[in-house]
Amino acid sequence: MSDPGSPPPICVVEDSPVDLDLLRHAFRRRRLANPLTVARDGEEALAGLERWARGEEPVPAVVLLDIRLPRINGLEVLRALRAHPDCGRIPVVMLTSSADDADIRTAYESGANSYIVKPVDFDRFMDVAEQIELYWCVLNQPPASVFTSGRSPRDEDSAR
Amino acid sequence: MSDPGSPPPICVVEDSPVDLDLLRHAFRRRRLANPLTVARDGEEALAGLERWARGEEPVPAVVLLDIRLPRINGLEVLRALRAHPDCGRIPVVMLTSSADDADIRTAYESGANSYIVKPVDFDRFMDVAEQIELYWCVLNQPPASVFTSGRSPRDEDSAR
Repeated sequence: MSDPGSPPPICVVEDSPVDLDLLRHAFRRRRLANPLTVARDGEEALAGLERWARGEEPVPAVVLLDIRLPRINGLEVLRALRAHPDCGRIPVVMLTSSADDADIRTAYESGANSYIVKPVDFDRFMDVAEQIELYWCVLNQPPASVFTSGRSPRDEDSAR
Repeated sequence: MSDPGSPPPICVVEDSPVDLDLLRHAFRRRRLANPLTVARDGEEALAGLERWARGEEPVPAVVLLDIRLPRINGLEVLRALRAHPDCGRIPVVMLTSSADDADIRTAYESGANSYIVKPVDFDRFMDVAEQIELYWCVLNQPPASVFTSGRSPRDEDSAR
């Protein structure tokens, strides 16, 4: 169940165990309180979306979405998320190894908030993961309407 | 004229001279190469949009858009930008003193990529400005189609 007093999670949709480990390591280093939830393919991501909409799991502050995913690719997941009546405005950052212009264009046209190409270098990957977490979990104000309780993290902060 | 070899600017739409000075100071401290362009009200912002579309000025990597602006407010500027056939996907960060839920919801519904409430504290404002610049000018990959030359900053990097 969603606890309105705890910080919203970061949802990572990623099938590469190596990249997942790197993200976990980077987020642990930054020591932010936002927990990590993981979907390993597009189908798992869409199942998660339904649990957020039903209030069974907390709505994430941001979804980090890979493009090349088993079953349903990330761009289809993005379109399904944007078309969702309750969770349609959750911030989505495409985090992918594809620097292909067509992928970038399609992602923005489908409603991605941001598009980041995964760095190949280990240290750079860690830095980028930390920056992403800091930006979307601390700086950015997510739309209140994505929180099923109707309360934003700002409200939760002041209620703590 | 747009020089395809130079980094794209950051466009700030802001009527407060104090906040503008703070942003300039923060960006100078970070020493990134992206120049700053300024529009002081919504009308100036829309005039800038037309110059980007005609290729007379370089398309910015990101637009930092205040909401409370003279003449045309930031949310109207955002809607006009999103409806533009050539420059419709430029990343837009709302940077405003309003933490009003209705403003946040309307901004996301109108296509804002991100929404950041201006910190009141000076040091915190500087940090946030630096993080915004780093995220949108270094980490984020803007849609190639917003660059009138059809070339993204990534291409420009590799061409340097």
